[in-house]
Amino acid sequence: MSAATYDVLGIGNAIVDILAKTDDAFLATHGMTKGAMALIDEAQAAAIYQAMGPATEISGGSAANTIAGIANFGARAAFVGKVRDDQLGGVFSHDIRASHVAFETRPAFAGPATARCYVLVTPDGERTMNTYLGAAQDLSPADIDPAQIADAAIVYLEGYLWDPQDAKEAFLKAAGIAHAHGRRVALTLSDAFCVGRYRDEFLHLIRSNTVDIVFANAAELAALYHNDDFDAALTQLRADATLAVVTRSEKGCVVATKDSVTPVPAFPVKQVLDTTGAGDLFAAGFLFGTVRGFDHAQCGRLGALAAAEVIQQIGARPQASLKALAQAADLPV
Amino acid sequence: MSAATYDVLGIGNAIVDILAKTDDAFLATHGMTKGAMALIDEAQAAAIYQAMGPATEISGGSAANTIAGIANFGARAAFVGKVRDDQLGGVFSHDIRASHVAFETRPAFAGPATARCYVLVTPDGERTMNTYLGAAQDLSPADIDPAQIADAAIVYLEGYLWDPQDAKEAFLKAAGIAHAHGRRVALTLSDAFCVGRYRDEFLHLIRSNTVDIVFANAAELAALYHNDDFDAALTQLRADATLAVVTRSEKGCVVATKDSVTPVPAFPVKQVLDTTGAGDLFAAGFLFGTVRGFDHAQCGRLGALAAAEVIQQIGARPQASLKALAQAADLPV
Repeated sequence: MSAATYDVLGIGNAIVDILAKTDDAFLATHGMTKGAMALIDEAQAAAIYQAMGPATEISGGSAANTIAGIANFGARAAFVGKVRDDQLGGVFSHDIRASHVAFETRPAFAGPATARCYVLVTPDGERTMNTYLGAAQDLSPADIDPAQIADAAIVYLEGYLWDPQDAKEAFLKAAGIAHAHGRRVALTLSDAFCVGRYRDEFLHLIRSNTVDIVFANAAELAALYHNDDFDAALTQLRADATLAVVTRSEKGCVVATKDSVTPVPAFPVKQVLDTTGAGDLFAAGFLFGTVRGFDHAQCGRLGALAAAEVIQQIGARPQASLKALAQAADLPV
Repeated sequence: MSAATYDVLGIGNAIVDILAKTDDAFLATHGMTKGAMALIDEAQAAAIYQAMGPATEISGGSAANTIAGIANFGARAAFVGKVRDDQLGGVFSHDIRASHVAFETRPAFAGPATARCYVLVTPDGERTMNTYLGAAQDLSPADIDPAQIADAAIVYLEGYLWDPQDAKEAFLKAAGIAHAHGRRVALTLSDAFCVGRYRDEFLHLIRSNTVDIVFANAAELAALYHNDDFDAALTQLRADATLAVVTRSEKGCVVATKDSVTPVPAFPVKQVLDTTGAGDLFAAGFLFGTVRGFDHAQCGRLGALAAAEVIQQIGARPQASLKALAQAADLPV
C-alpha cells in the first residue's frame, strides 16, 4: 500500500441547501416529518419553495459537508458528485473548491438541474429536509476514476447514494477499488428513513465488510435493526461491523468495535441555531482523527467539537477554522 | 390624492449577494476599496469569485433590502427591478415575494445573467462590495407601470440606478408620475463613489425637488458637497433639500429640514457581524415611520433599530420580525 494523495475522498449527492426559518405548523401543513429527509420531485420542489419564506442558499450535501469539514481541519480531501452546468452547480463547485477540496467530477450538460435541498429550520434549531435530487441522479460508475480512488486513504460514502439508481453502482465500484488497493471504506447510514428504504442492502454492506467504518445516529441504528433498545441494537451492530460510531446528540457518541465500546461526551453548546450538518461534521472530525491515527476517544472528541460548532451557526459548512477550534480545546490536530 | 395601495414602492437594482468572509489582505491584493461598492464586468466577476472563499447566497440589492424591511415592519410594499429568467433570478424573485413584497417586473429572457454582488466581509464586520450589474442594466422606462407608481404613497429610489443607463430614465419617469399624483419621492445617495460619479446630477435632483426625502451617510454627504466638515456640509444639504436624513454609524443620525435638525442616537449593538444592509435597513425603519406619520425622532429610532438588527446577522435582509423588535423597544409601529 503506497502513500495516498488524499486523506479522505467522499462520494455523495452534490446539493445546494436552500434554508429558511419556519415553524412546526408549516411542517404539519405540508405533511413533513420533523427532522427527517424526504425525497421530492420537481413539482413538489416548486410547491414547497413557493410556500416557504425568504431563504439563504449554502452549499450542502451530506458527504460534501463532511469532506469540506475534513479539509477545514487541515487534511487533504477530495469529493465526487454530480451537478449540472447551471448557476447552482456553479455555486456548489465554487464552494467545495474554495474549501480546498479537489472536485473534478464532470458536470451534466443536459437533464435535470443541480440538486437542491429545501431545509426548514424550526425555532428549536431542528432541520427538516426536502431533497430534489435533480442532476445528482446522473452520478454513475463512469464518474469514478480508479486512480483517484486508489489514491485516497479512506473512501467515505453516504447512504443517500442508494436513492439515485446509478450512484449505487458508483458506490460499489469505488468501494471495490479502495479495498483492492488496501484502503478503508466508511459509510454513513444518513437518515432513519433512508435506512428504512435500504435496510437489507445496508446490512449486507456491513456484514460483507464492503464497509470498514459505519456512522449512524441512534434513530438510524434503531431502524437498521428494528430495535429501539439502544444497547441491544448496538450489540447487534458490533457483531456485524468492524468499527461503528453511533452519535446520540447531546449524549455524545459511542465508538464500538468487537472488543470495545468507548463512550465520548458531547461538547457544550451555547445555543443551537440550526442542526443542519451536525452528523456530517461529526463524521468529519472523527475521520480526520482517524487519518491522523488518533485513538477512538480523541476521534470522537474531534467529531463532537465539529458538530457542536456547526449547530451554532446557519448552514452545514463551518465558517470558523476547525483546526483552530481543536487547538483551542487542547485536542490534537 | 386618493388612498394608496402601497405605502412604499422601491425601484432598484435586483441583485443576489454572494457573501464570503475574508481579510484585509485579500481586499488589498485585489485592489478593493474597503467599505465601498465597485462595479465590475463579467470577467472581473469570474476572477473575484474564483479567488474568494466559500460563500453564502442571499438576496440583496439596496432598495430591495429597504423594501423587504418595510414589509417586515408590517407596511404594504412593492419593488420594481430587473432579473433574468435564471436560477439566481428565481432566488431573488422568490425571496422578495416571500417577504410579502409585490414584485411584478417582467424578467429578461435574454442577455446577461441576474446581477450579483460579491460581498467580502472582513473580521471587523465591514463589507466591501463588487457588483456585476448583469440583467439589472435592462431595467427601462417600459418597466415602470404608471398605475402602480401612482398607487404608492412614497416612491423610493436608489442612487445606484444611475449606473445602468436606462434605469436613470425609469427613475425619472417614476418620480414624475409620483409627483403628478401628489405622492412623495425619496432617494438614497447609495455610496460615496456613486456620488462621485453622479454628483452634479444628484445635486440637480435634490435642488429641483425631483426628490422630497434624501438619505445619505456621512461619506456620501461629504462627497456630495466636496466638504469633509460634517456640520458645514449638512448646512449645505439643508439649503438644498426638503427633508434630509444623514446616518453616522454608531453616532446615530440627524434628521434635517430647513427649520430643524433632530439628532437621533444609534441603538446599542452587542457584536457587529456584517454591516451589509445597515443603510438600507435604516431607510426601511425611517420610511416605515414616515408612512405611519410618526415624528422625526421616532422615524430615526425605527431606522436605528432596523440597522442595529441587520448588522448583528449575516446578510442584508433581517430574519427577525422588525415589528416585534420595535414593540419590544417601546417604539410605535
